Amino acid sequence: MSRSTALKKSPIQSVSNADHKGIYIVSPSSAVAEEKVLTRGVQRLEKMGFKVVLDRDVLARDQRFAGTDSQRLAVFDRAVKQKLPIVMASRGGYGVTRLLPHLNWAALANSGKRFVGQSDFTAFNLALLAKTGLVSYAGPTVCYDFGAAKTEILTTEIFGEVMRGELEILSFESEKADPIDCRGILWGGNLAMITALIGTPFMPKIKGGILFVEDVGEHPYRVERMLNQLAQAGILGKQKALILGGFTEYKLAEHDRGYDLNAAIEFIKQTVKIPVIPGLPYGHTPMKVTLPIGAKVGVATEDGIAHIVLDEHLDEM
Amino acid sequence: MSRSTALKKSPIQSVSNADHKGIYIVSPSSAVAEEKVLTRGVQRLEKMGFKVVLDRDVLARDQRFAGTDSQRLAVFDRAVKQKLPIVMASRGGYGVTRLLPHLNWAALANSGKRFVGQSDFTAFNLALLAKTGLVSYAGPTVCYDFGAAKTEILTTEIFGEVMRGELEILSFESEKADPIDCRGILWGGNLAMITALIGTPFMPKIKGGILFVEDVGEHPYRVERMLNQLAQAGILGKQKALILGGFTEYKLAEHDRGYDLNAAIEFIKQTVKIPVIPGLPYGHTPMKVTLPIGAKVGVATEDGIAHIVLDEHLDEM
Repeated sequence: MSRSTALKKSPIQSVSNADHKGIYIVSPSSAVAEEKVLTRGVQRLEKMGFKVVLDRDVLARDQRFAGTDSQRLAVFDRAVKQKLPIVMASRGGYGVTRLLPHLNWAALANSGKRFVGQSDFTAFNLALLAKTGLVSYAGPTVCYDFGAAKTEILTTEIFGEVMRGELEILSFESEKADPIDCRGILWGGNLAMITALIGTPFMPKIKGGILFVEDVGEHPYRVERMLNQLAQAGILGKQKALILGGFTEYKLAEHDRGYDLNAAIEFIKQTVKIPVIPGLPYGHTPMKVTLPIGAKVGVATEDGIAHIVLDEHLDEM
Repeated sequence: MSRSTALKKSPIQSVSNADHKGIYIVSPSSAVAEEKVLTRGVQRLEKMGFKVVLDRDVLARDQRFAGTDSQRLAVFDRAVKQKLPIVMASRGGYGVTRLLPHLNWAALANSGKRFVGQSDFTAFNLALLAKTGLVSYAGPTVCYDFGAAKTEILTTEIFGEVMRGELEILSFESEKADPIDCRGILWGGNLAMITALIGTPFMPKIKGGILFVEDVGEHPYRVERMLNQLAQAGILGKQKALILGGFTEYKLAEHDRGYDLNAAIEFIKQTVKIPVIPGLPYGHTPMKVTLPIGAKVGVATEDGIAHIVLDEHLDEM
């Protein structure tokens, strides 16, 4: 993987040099399992130069959740009112979809905060886009990424670059990528969460977009079933490209007899004729890029390399 | 569980006494794992008095599927053309959703066959209802139910009674059932397959219906997420009742801290205020009733017992 960066303002939202230096940490999904992991993540972020403030309920717990629904809703109210520009999830898990009907979308839109998270947080990323058009970020979480015993340096560096608006082009190896050179709205995240929004008011209606997906612990037949639902719902066929992140922690069985993730993707390609770009370093993996959800980007492939162009000078599409 | 039966014609489709005696067995989903299990299932059905004919590709195999998509599509063409009135799936698994856009719905509707299956087959049950209005059946499969080393006698008896149109009322223990006395279209099946159809042309648009659901190997938070999607998509709130079948083969974790299936259902009840009737003997369990999907039924609860009335004399709803 390589990346082109420049010391310039973000293509997404203009922020001053100071503005991107503060992170407010929230727990909108499952409860933080180990406080020491969160603490280690905070220390890493501080070493990177970020000012970090923990929401007061960041360690709250109610059953499997990081507090009751009311508590987790109040988290967003506080996140909007506080001063730091970045709001990062402590972790994923489950819980955001319960909150969606009750969030104050106007306040979230007006806040201009940069919300960052992954997995369950995909539901928030996409609902925010659907309800307000505000760009937010698929990227690392405090516990999983910054709090890991051994951190993936590229994950943390790219997060910093994207927050500072320095990342112009993200390039990654993509064997067997379909030839493409296009522009569109980048959207996606965790596939199970994307499909969990189909038919609801929280699913963005995006045509000519660039959809990226990843998942964990889902057998390829379930990945196929989810992508097939997106196809049959008329969503996948309206996108210009499908970018595949990591699909990890599943087990093939003897009775699969050669059926695997490639077979699933081949079926989807035959079904909707969409260009597919594998190899995005994003998923439930230590290596993960930070990507703007809802931003216009360019995507091109050549010689086994794919490029995502996060550039403010893209023409209107 | 108890049931009231009568020697009368089906409330669903009128068949002669002879007509209900033949079963054509097909494999539209995953490949049959063991031929001897299928054979044992056929023998049990024959002992019950059914004439049984195996589709020629019932043991076909392509990767994890019971043949290629073309092969499995041709199965339905043959099932429609042959003479026997009942078409039963050999097993579930995965594969039906791949076929849905290519099925000949007019031929299926005109056939008047009684299609029976479960799990992956739910996608066919519901798509058939959406596309044609034809009633089909959630019920046993050849391998899982009739081919089991030890068969659940009630499962096989009730299947026979429903096929003969003898079953009038199905009653089952339902502790903590909400009070209800209503009528509506009965629909549902496997929850993962129901949600996999949301947003597609294969999802029936049913208002005032009675939805029954079951699933296997899904943690309660995933069951909740699926039911919540049905709620947020405006589907669950339009139903008169939610009937819960079996939810089996999942493991709660220490970090669930008391969150369980009851907690999930309580959340859903708070969200959509729908009467919930637990305890339906249907699911990935040896004991399973056979239910008409798309038929008008009555549902009532009293004193810890729920009744599903499969009666042709129900008034128009």
